[in-house]
Amino acid sequence: MTTEMQVSDEQRHREEELVRLVLASFDGTPEPRLKELMQGVVRHLHAFLRDVRLTEREWLQAIEFLTAVGHITDDRRQEFILLSDTLGASMQTIAINNEAYGDATEATVFGPFFVEDSPHVELGGDIAGSASGQPCWVEGTVTDIDGRPIAGARIEVWEADEDGFYDVQYTDDRVAGRAHLFSDDDGSFRFWAVTPTPYPIPHDGPVGAMLAATGRSPMRASHLHFMVGAEGCRTLVTHIFVRGDELLASDSVFGVKDSLVKDFVEQPAGTPTPDGRELGDASWSRVAFDIVLAPAEV
Amino acid sequence: MTTEMQVSDEQRHREEELVRLVLASFDGTPEPRLKELMQGVVRHLHAFLRDVRLTEREWLQAIEFLTAVGHITDDRRQEFILLSDTLGASMQTIAINNEAYGDATEATVFGPFFVEDSPHVELGGDIAGSASGQPCWVEGTVTDIDGRPIAGARIEVWEADEDGFYDVQYTDDRVAGRAHLFSDDDGSFRFWAVTPTPYPIPHDGPVGAMLAATGRSPMRASHLHFMVGAEGCRTLVTHIFVRGDELLASDSVFGVKDSLVKDFVEQPAGTPTPDGRELGDASWSRVAFDIVLAPAEV
Repeated sequence: MTTEMQVSDEQRHREEELVRLVLASFDGTPEPRLKELMQGVVRHLHAFLRDVRLTEREWLQAIEFLTAVGHITDDRRQEFILLSDTLGASMQTIAINNEAYGDATEATVFGPFFVEDSPHVELGGDIAGSASGQPCWVEGTVTDIDGRPIAGARIEVWEADEDGFYDVQYTDDRVAGRAHLFSDDDGSFRFWAVTPTPYPIPHDGPVGAMLAATGRSPMRASHLHFMVGAEGCRTLVTHIFVRGDELLASDSVFGVKDSLVKDFVEQPAGTPTPDGRELGDASWSRVAFDIVLAPAEV
Repeated sequence: MTTEMQVSDEQRHREEELVRLVLASFDGTPEPRLKELMQGVVRHLHAFLRDVRLTEREWLQAIEFLTAVGHITDDRRQEFILLSDTLGASMQTIAINNEAYGDATEATVFGPFFVEDSPHVELGGDIAGSASGQPCWVEGTVTDIDGRPIAGARIEVWEADEDGFYDVQYTDDRVAGRAHLFSDDDGSFRFWAVTPTPYPIPHDGPVGAMLAATGRSPMRASHLHFMVGAEGCRTLVTHIFVRGDELLASDSVFGVKDSLVKDFVEQPAGTPTPDGRELGDASWSRVAFDIVLAPAEV
């Protein structure tokens, strides 16, 4: 950076000597990967400090910020994950570990709201339960990268209700807006959910303060979560997003990928439903999502 | 790094696009310095992730480590400062903000054990109080960079006892091993303290676990803390270290600078003391430390 150029040779030498000393302190790390990681942390952390010429006051503010992130984190809230998400670090880690594989469906962030042991629903069933929102018919297929149908793939689905809350954010132990089902013999699947709506990530803590101070919105683009697994295939963690959502370009955790934006087609009240379900005066939507799983070993 | 070279052009493009997207999300930050800092964090954090090709499991371990650092931090213990110290980040911040200024005395880490409102002692007084250890006579001068004596400079001194603990680490509210005094009309100062001995930084938490996993020692080289201030001068925060201490090359917070290593000269029992103090059967030591303060504005 430009600031670096104002530093004298002697000063630069002192700073570089310190980096060498700290790097060398990790030379005796028994486990090679841990050594690589720690020396990587040191190299990039010191490069940051030197690059921005961090002041001692700013250093103290950073310590105080991290302390606040630590103190608000508990069993129900993980502010460090939120910090990682809003700095794009979660998404970059996913990008690094999920290289595009042919036409396999792309991955995106897992998020903090997945719960083990979700209810099972039959094909065509409703995952919404008591979650409020416009009914949404979701259908598609699960195939491998050669287009062969995958029967019996486990499809986990979870989403917020129309008020922007996941079931686990309520205090009444409800289970709603989440379920799992299995693909049919021909790889197809279908279920009812609710049309995804935008919601803010929790923003009443230090990460929310950081977003406010930097003029960023806490809103996430509307999405429906999927985790899809089948024998011999890489487990896919992803979302589908709603085409036309004005938040697609400013998703607060950088989770949007073009290939995951889908048409949620509005159906006026009275439009016959695919399975004959009677929705009375309610409008509904429908979306198609064909899932392609990469092989387990790549 | 070498791993980077195995990444396809397409994959590299995806990762770089994500970095650009995250950087752009901070473009609207109202305060220019905050924008610079946040974009610096993003640039270097993503460079780290991509450089080491962090796995999703390692990412989770990092989240868990930071959570543990946050949870052990309270009013009496600051594990984030300890983490910063052991990664050399504290010392690098000091290096960046305290460029060598002519012959001015060099700065080093502040540490977590300074306390406001220390007792005042007269010149020649004893700062040890009830702190155990070998008596040590400390003398020197405070001058400006042109060699002019500085009268009335405020000299804060603090240190651990021979068991390796600062007074604030005991639970009995003792005040010991810390005081302040003022330089004489000719800039000179002198006081009794105890000869510094090595001690470990607190290592029963996550930072201690990190040091153990990487084969590093938690020990700090023996030292005596100083903070020296005078009108028109930059306040100096520093230590003096004990020449011959075998920990000088492996100080766990990287605080040692050659210019701060001093001869603590052993005096056999019975050697007359500079001020006629009677020490009976006890040996003692003496050290000289001439302090040069930089001007306030540089």
